[in-house]
Amino acid sequence: MIIVLKKNAGEARLLALTKRLEAQGLSTQLLQGVETRVVGVIGDAGRLDADEIRSLPGVETVLRVSEPCQKAGRRCHPEDTVVDVSGVKIGGGQFAMIAGPCTVESREQLLSVAQSVRDAGAQLLRGGAFKPRTSPYDFQGLGEEGLRLLAEAKRLTGLPVVSEIMSVRQLPLFEDVDMLQVGARNMQNYELLRELGRIRRPVLLKRGQSATLRELLLAAEYIMAGGNGQIVLCERGIRCFEAETRNTLDLSAIPALHERTHLPVIADPSHATGEARFVRPMALAAAAAGADGLMIEVHNDPAKALCDGPQALTPPAYAELAAAVGRVRAALAE
Amino acid sequence: MIIVLKKNAGEARLLALTKRLEAQGLSTQLLQGVETRVVGVIGDAGRLDADEIRSLPGVETVLRVSEPCQKAGRRCHPEDTVVDVSGVKIGGGQFAMIAGPCTVESREQLLSVAQSVRDAGAQLLRGGAFKPRTSPYDFQGLGEEGLRLLAEAKRLTGLPVVSEIMSVRQLPLFEDVDMLQVGARNMQNYELLRELGRIRRPVLLKRGQSATLRELLLAAEYIMAGGNGQIVLCERGIRCFEAETRNTLDLSAIPALHERTHLPVIADPSHATGEARFVRPMALAAAAAGADGLMIEVHNDPAKALCDGPQALTPPAYAELAAAVGRVRAALAE
Amino acid sequence: MIIVLKKNAGEARLLALTKRLEAQGLSTQLLQGVETRVVGVIGDAGRLDADEIRSLPGVETVLRVSEPCQKAGRRCHPEDTVVDVSGVKIGGGQFAMIAGPCTVESREQLLSVAQSVRDAGAQLLRGGAFKPRTSPYDFQGLGEEGLRLLAEAKRLTGLPVVSEIMSVRQLPLFEDVDMLQVGARNMQNYELLRELGRIRRPVLLKRGQSATLRELLLAAEYIMAGGNGQIVLCERGIRCFEAETRNTLDLSAIPALHERTHLPVIADPSHATGEARFVRPMALAAAAAGADGLMIEVHNDPAKALCDGPQALTPPAYAELAAAVGRVRAALAE
Amino acid sequence: MIIVLKKNAGEARLLALTKRLEAQGLSTQLLQGVETRVVGVIGDAGRLDADEIRSLPGVETVLRVSEPCQKAGRRCHPEDTVVDVSGVKIGGGQFAMIAGPCTVESREQLLSVAQSVRDAGAQLLRGGAFKPRTSPYDFQGLGEEGLRLLAEAKRLTGLPVVSEIMSVRQLPLFEDVDMLQVGARNMQNYELLRELGRIRRPVLLKRGQSATLRELLLAAEYIMAGGNGQIVLCERGIRCFEAETRNTLDLSAIPALHERTHLPVIADPSHATGEARFVRPMALAAAAAGADGLMIEVHNDPAKALCDGPQALTPPAYAELAAAVGRVRAALAE
Repeated sequence: MIIVLKKNAGEARLLALTKRLEAQGLSTQLLQGVETRVVGVIGDAGRLDADEIRSLPGVETVLRVSEPCQKAGRRCHPEDTVVDVSGVKIGGGQFAMIAGPCTVESREQLLSVAQSVRDAGAQLLRGGAFKPRTSPYDFQGLGEEGLRLLAEAKRLTGLPVVSEIMSVRQLPLFEDVDMLQVGARNMQNYELLRELGRIRRPVLLKRGQSATLRELLLAAEYIMAGGNGQIVLCERGIRCFEAETRNTLDLSAIPALHERTHLPVIADPSHATGEARFVRPMALAAAAAGADGLMIEVHNDPAKALCDGPQALTPPAYAELAAAVGRVRAALAE
Repeated sequence: MIIVLKKNAGEARLLALTKRLEAQGLSTQLLQGVETRVVGVIGDAGRLDADEIRSLPGVETVLRVSEPCQKAGRRCHPEDTVVDVSGVKIGGGQFAMIAGPCTVESREQLLSVAQSVRDAGAQLLRGGAFKPRTSPYDFQGLGEEGLRLLAEAKRLTGLPVVSEIMSVRQLPLFEDVDMLQVGARNMQNYELLRELGRIRRPVLLKRGQSATLRELLLAAEYIMAGGNGQIVLCERGIRCFEAETRNTLDLSAIPALHERTHLPVIADPSHATGEARFVRPMALAAAAAGADGLMIEVHNDPAKALCDGPQALTPPAYAELAAAVGRVRAALAE
Repeated sequence: MIIVLKKNAGEARLLALTKRLEAQGLSTQLLQGVETRVVGVIGDAGRLDADEIRSLPGVETVLRVSEPCQKAGRRCHPEDTVVDVSGVKIGGGQFAMIAGPCTVESREQLLSVAQSVRDAGAQLLRGGAFKPRTSPYDFQGLGEEGLRLLAEAKRLTGLPVVSEIMSVRQLPLFEDVDMLQVGARNMQNYELLRELGRIRRPVLLKRGQSATLRELLLAAEYIMAGGNGQIVLCERGIRCFEAETRNTLDLSAIPALHERTHLPVIADPSHATGEARFVRPMALAAAAAGADGLMIEVHNDPAKALCDGPQALTPPAYAELAAAVGRVRAALAE
Repeated sequence: MIIVLKKNAGEARLLALTKRLEAQGLSTQLLQGVETRVVGVIGDAGRLDADEIRSLPGVETVLRVSEPCQKAGRRCHPEDTVVDVSGVKIGGGQFAMIAGPCTVESREQLLSVAQSVRDAGAQLLRGGAFKPRTSPYDFQGLGEEGLRLLAEAKRLTGLPVVSEIMSVRQLPLFEDVDMLQVGARNMQNYELLRELGRIRRPVLLKRGQSATLRELLLAAEYIMAGGNGQIVLCERGIRCFEAETRNTLDLSAIPALHERTHLPVIADPSHATGEARFVRPMALAAAAAGADGLMIEVHNDPAKALCDGPQALTPPAYAELAAAVGRVRAALAE
């Protein structure tokens, strides 16, 4: 850690600072510039709280020279994590297609979509039972009944299932859910993250719509600190000034995250774009950018979907897309 | 509601749409343009889900002509709500200063700050017991002990207290907290919002860092739908490209919210700017923009604060600011 | 156009509005709702200025039902434009690789890079002679000498050249430049755009870093209004809260622009990401998203580049990328 | 300047770096950490191009310890600049109200508004003759005729005038304009900035809608580098995700700029909010935040304005606002 002192910081400030650091077992080295003095901290500064140091009297700014060694970070865990969702592998070169309806609406709808996406080669089935909705008056999902239908679809198709959990209290209902999804709105719901750190099932952690990559990794760290390292990160679009598409799919997050973490990274072009006709190009782009998987909404009758119909692909469109994704990935591997 | 049809939408689509609307007790009127057809919906379209209509086949876009009548909206509740926090009034012309440390750190710290801000005329005491921190390794607050200290400070100073609640499970611990704060990260934690709708204590609802005003109002609606209408909204800075200040305090949200809702609106310049030296100008600006109150962090020894020290005012700086806020408000009232 | 009246707008306002519209040769139809009245405008409302109508007394809001027919719009010109840069075609299924150094630095540097990228199959050579720099004290390019070197490189390699023009006064110097680039900072330099509308050479128009797609298309419209329809649009990253990469490459702009305009759309992953190691994945992603070409910075010795060195590929890395782009495009075409 | 080396940077890299720095007359000091090595540069590193150093092999990142001494910066010029616009002073405690129509539309309109705002105490008259419009088909201003009318209004009212210049070629027409405005779209039109550096008239430089404060200051630096130090900076709203108001007026820019530069800073709440009813609260807020002046659009008949009518105040509303601004400023000065 590099600590830049204020121009007017006197000897007493400097002495207090170095004493404090030494009390924490760190040694220091002074850099005396023409106008400015800089203190270099030698030793494992990872435990220091940069904000705390920055708030000390006489301190102008602080630069972390090396990121603290964190469980989600690649620096201390260079090898790719491979997440195993009831036998389906994601990461470390293994690619997974997750497909299904935004929301479980009925037995017929779910089973029809589940069979279509399995036939088109999907490895995991998605479906929302509890839906976070901006308005309290919108349809909030089938709840427990939706989870029962997912379990049935899993038995019939053999596809492990992914579903969003919105609160710690729902956890007992998620026994049969193979991978628990944390939605963008809950990325910093720390109680939920901590509780997911205590279980031993994979978590799909979606990036908040205005979360930096660092914040996403620290959200994963909340889960990993509890002992659960089976986490897949998901880029699903960020919020910026442009309103042409619902969110802006930040595909450069994929290589940037791969560099910083060993956790797998997938993309959700359906929620990001909000429009079925943009899902295909963005899914292909995400695959080309190196995603470890894709999450795609499919509906047997998009026009009648109770939620997010405009962004769902029909089963044939999904099948065609899945094939094209396979060709793009093959082209990259040559 | 105005529904614009796609250029290629045939008669069958139009017929299906009008039948569907009529089945919901609404009548329609067709506007036949040169290239486009538009359906005007007559009646209370507030119950229609605009997204659902937009996803119907043949529909190009949808425009709500009048917002649905919501509990938080001014349209159906034109008079200002006055929130009563154990005797302290906020809204409808009544202005409240909320001051105190970011985090309760010790008995000495809290009591010292509490007395200072009471002496400088603050009406409410703030103090965090449970702290949402981006990193799991940062100080997370004193928890229950912090709440006990707040209760003691309240007894000694007579100031009602405000503290942040992070989850439904903490609710029993908050018995003695006069106003429950929902932080920016939890603005869309719907389980928490719903639970706060069931209690009968005032809620301080902070705007998410990338929440639109509409989303903030719908978060309030989650609470109000449960029957609790004692809500104060708080602008605390939004996230945009500019990194000079921690967040960008969006003061135009104050008049824009006042226009749309009857709920009081306050500002938190401490979290927004992250720098004590910017707190004063932004607090004065918020008062001038018509805020119904201010929430200001004060610490007896900012340099030793365990959290967010750089943004805390000293007690004398707070007292001077409070006096200036009073003068600005008097100038506006002339 | 749909005009929603204010709730309190009386008969006189309505009469004045309809008279005004009729005076412009348009007819109107009234939609009488329960609380609101809406005027539908029938006829070619494209000439109406929506902002002007919105500012009339009694008008609440205005919705354009159909975009005005513009030269850059696909609605009135459904077929893809193919831009011809001295024989190199871009658009309508024809893909172009534009490569070269950020800045022309010396004869040796330029010729070396030019030959490398030609050997790797690039169709066009890029190189900056006039450089827009944020600070007045940074290197501003070789100017006229740079353009002379580009002309020489063109003679030696046969590659048509692309270079950025920053002002109308530089136009006489650009005689030998095959395609004139308008940089992001100048996207709304209307004098420059108008002047480029008068010449008969292709223009590469870069999206401003906070420009919406509509604003980009209207910038193209400034050029096309003057009679020059040979325009290639370029997505080069937008500015948002995320600082992990220099800009956020908004790849959904590619399909969204293709839907709205017949002009070709390319991407510049070098400027967007600012880091050579992110250029490859984002270039492949842009190709997969349907771009009509790519603009890639290549330097024979990136570490010694006078400008933007960290984002330049070496010639071998470029050659490898170009081959991978070819494979991805082939995979899409299957 | 602090230069952090990459973990794998060997001795040769370090040696090359220190040699290079020493060749520029700087000395260095090495900080040897456990994992990382850091080079401190001693001497005036202001001339070093941080981007260039960052691109050297073996360099991980670069931190400027002290900003280079720039003409616009407060570090090397601590005293407030007072800009003199034909006798009207702005900055250093002197506050100026600039008012007038968005666009000069006719002799009657301009003279009527000019007299109203002078009677209400405005010090400067604004009025656009050349208007930058997003669409080439919108009204572009009266041009030269507009400037003639401004000159006449100045003779009749005695108010110095401010008008926007869009290109170097218009400069000869602006002889009688007392202060030349550079609009947000032209903030990085470097040719225009350089030309304005050569004249000896004050410049009103508006912040680009996605410009950082650093970029705004460097734009001012382009003008100052040419010898013209009479610059007033203007915050006029930035673009972010929120669409409730046209732009987001970033009032924290006012104290942040005052800290970093000696140039005066004013605010333009009219363009920022785009709505007359938000102009008043935001104007008062800007004054309370410490602005050195305000720029307010006033129109004698806002409903008939040819451009931006919805944001113009009527003369009586302006007079009332001007009085309230005076009271707020008096309250701050007590």
